[in-house]
Amino acid sequence: MAAAIYAARQKSDFVLVTKEFGGQMARKEVAIENYPGMESVSAQDLIAKFRGHLGKLNVAVKIGEVLEIKKIENGFEVAIGKEILAARAVIVATGSEPRHLNVVGEKEFIGRGVGYCTTCDGPLFARRVVAVVGGGNAAFEAAIFLADFAKKIYILERGAKIMADAANRELLAKTGKAKIILNAKILRVEGENFVQGLVYQDVSGQETNLPVEGVFVKAGYQPASAFVADLVELNDRGEIEFDCVTQKTKIPGLFAAGDVSEIKFKQIVVAAGEGAKAAMAAGEYLRSLKA
Amino acid sequence: MAAAIYAARQKSDFVLVTKEFGGQMARKEVAIENYPGMESVSAQDLIAKFRGHLGKLNVAVKIGEVLEIKKIENGFEVAIGKEILAARAVIVATGSEPRHLNVVGEKEFIGRGVGYCTTCDGPLFARRVVAVVGGGNAAFEAAIFLADFAKKIYILERGAKIMADAANRELLAKTGKAKIILNAKILRVEGENFVQGLVYQDVSGQETNLPVEGVFVKAGYQPASAFVADLVELNDRGEIEFDCVTQKTKIPGLFAAGDVSEIKFKQIVVAAGEGAKAAMAAGEYLRSLKA
Repeated sequence: MAAAIYAARQKSDFVLVTKEFGGQMARKEVAIENYPGMESVSAQDLIAKFRGHLGKLNVAVKIGEVLEIKKIENGFEVAIGKEILAARAVIVATGSEPRHLNVVGEKEFIGRGVGYCTTCDGPLFARRVVAVVGGGNAAFEAAIFLADFAKKIYILERGAKIMADAANRELLAKTGKAKIILNAKILRVEGENFVQGLVYQDVSGQETNLPVEGVFVKAGYQPASAFVADLVELNDRGEIEFDCVTQKTKIPGLFAAGDVSEIKFKQIVVAAGEGAKAAMAAGEYLRSLKA
Repeated sequence: MAAAIYAARQKSDFVLVTKEFGGQMARKEVAIENYPGMESVSAQDLIAKFRGHLGKLNVAVKIGEVLEIKKIENGFEVAIGKEILAARAVIVATGSEPRHLNVVGEKEFIGRGVGYCTTCDGPLFARRVVAVVGGGNAAFEAAIFLADFAKKIYILERGAKIMADAANRELLAKTGKAKIILNAKILRVEGENFVQGLVYQDVSGQETNLPVEGVFVKAGYQPASAFVADLVELNDRGEIEFDCVTQKTKIPGLFAAGDVSEIKFKQIVVAAGEGAKAAMAAGEYLRSLKA
């Protein structure tokens, strides 16, 4: 959306193609308090403000999922379902998607105890014991949100330390409902019709079955880059490689911005800044074609 | 301010040292319409929102100008007037300052027809002919602002083309008051008690004396980096060099963000994103010292 705002200000002829608005923001559980200039704003409100900004600039929006981008002479073909758009330049700013655990039982129990969005499903777990898998800010924010409903919350982190920031650690501690388990390798989700337990292995190799009725997976995100894997180079995390000085990928006319790129810090304001940069770089590129 | 917001969220022990709030933003003439999520906001309001955000996070602020930063064992000494602060890490985010033309008469007529801030002095030029030196967005925004007061506005750009974006070019054209002169090398400001003329040279070498009563210099900005010139490497534009992948300068513990750095695109949201990155990188650095 930030790239579109900048592209519109430059009077570029473009369309914003997206399957949804907000992406990772839309799955955020707590108020956003780190977008500079907005002390505290709900994710839905911030998304609405960005959309309002697009509207004011009359940005053309096409709702759809880009399935493939092909390099052609003088530009690109962008496949949206059966429709093909031609473009001289493309900015890929598709963000990232929740990472699955890929363990036994995970897929089977989606919607029956396994979830990825606490705001969507959290209230169903009133007075129940739930697990949150992950140790970053997203996991802590999910647990803080769940604490309003759940009886007890286990946080299971695969590594030896918590990555969530101090503010979130304090907020969760205040709820008095959370227990943090480090070095926990998730093995499987168990249950009959609904989740009844989560089995993990500790460093000694011992298995423990936690009796939980809900499992929220907050094990990070993976870049939504699969649709350009054949077009541009991805690093070993699946992020689009680009030159952070010029904002260019190795494919002339193709730009990347935000969480789908190899930018190190994944934050809303960082992604917004990167989007603005990509739009300005794309504008320069388009002007260079005309020159 | 964005770096401070992120440092505060990380519970870093730090102080924000600044001689003023807003920097280049505070000298902006028109509403800000490209900070994503805020369709249109005055510079003063946006600065107030950022300051409110700092306040909510209880950021310690020291008003003063940093005169020098010295590398010492285990960190830095930061000189603010006669006071010296010790710090393990420093983020330099001092932005940039208006560039002077350095021509005869410029300094002499400051406050008597020569100015750098249109919102401050523009209204004094009602029904007068004024010149704006520069061809970027700042020059055009200054001219658009002046068009409410002035009779006629000359825009003098040293290069062969205008760099202002299409939106600003259109807005200025609508005023019907502006004349753009390209390839104009400014030679001197003339007058007696007040400015009476601006002399420039065209590509053929011919000199022209424009009869103007005001000269607004919008000839870009220079990074406010002089105070660290002996500490860290600057590029040929005076910008602090840093690694845009890791956000680090060559001096461990010293970070740079925004317009004072060699980041290519100078925009509010870009600088905010860079500030967030620098604070996160500095946080990682401080944690690595403890590890």
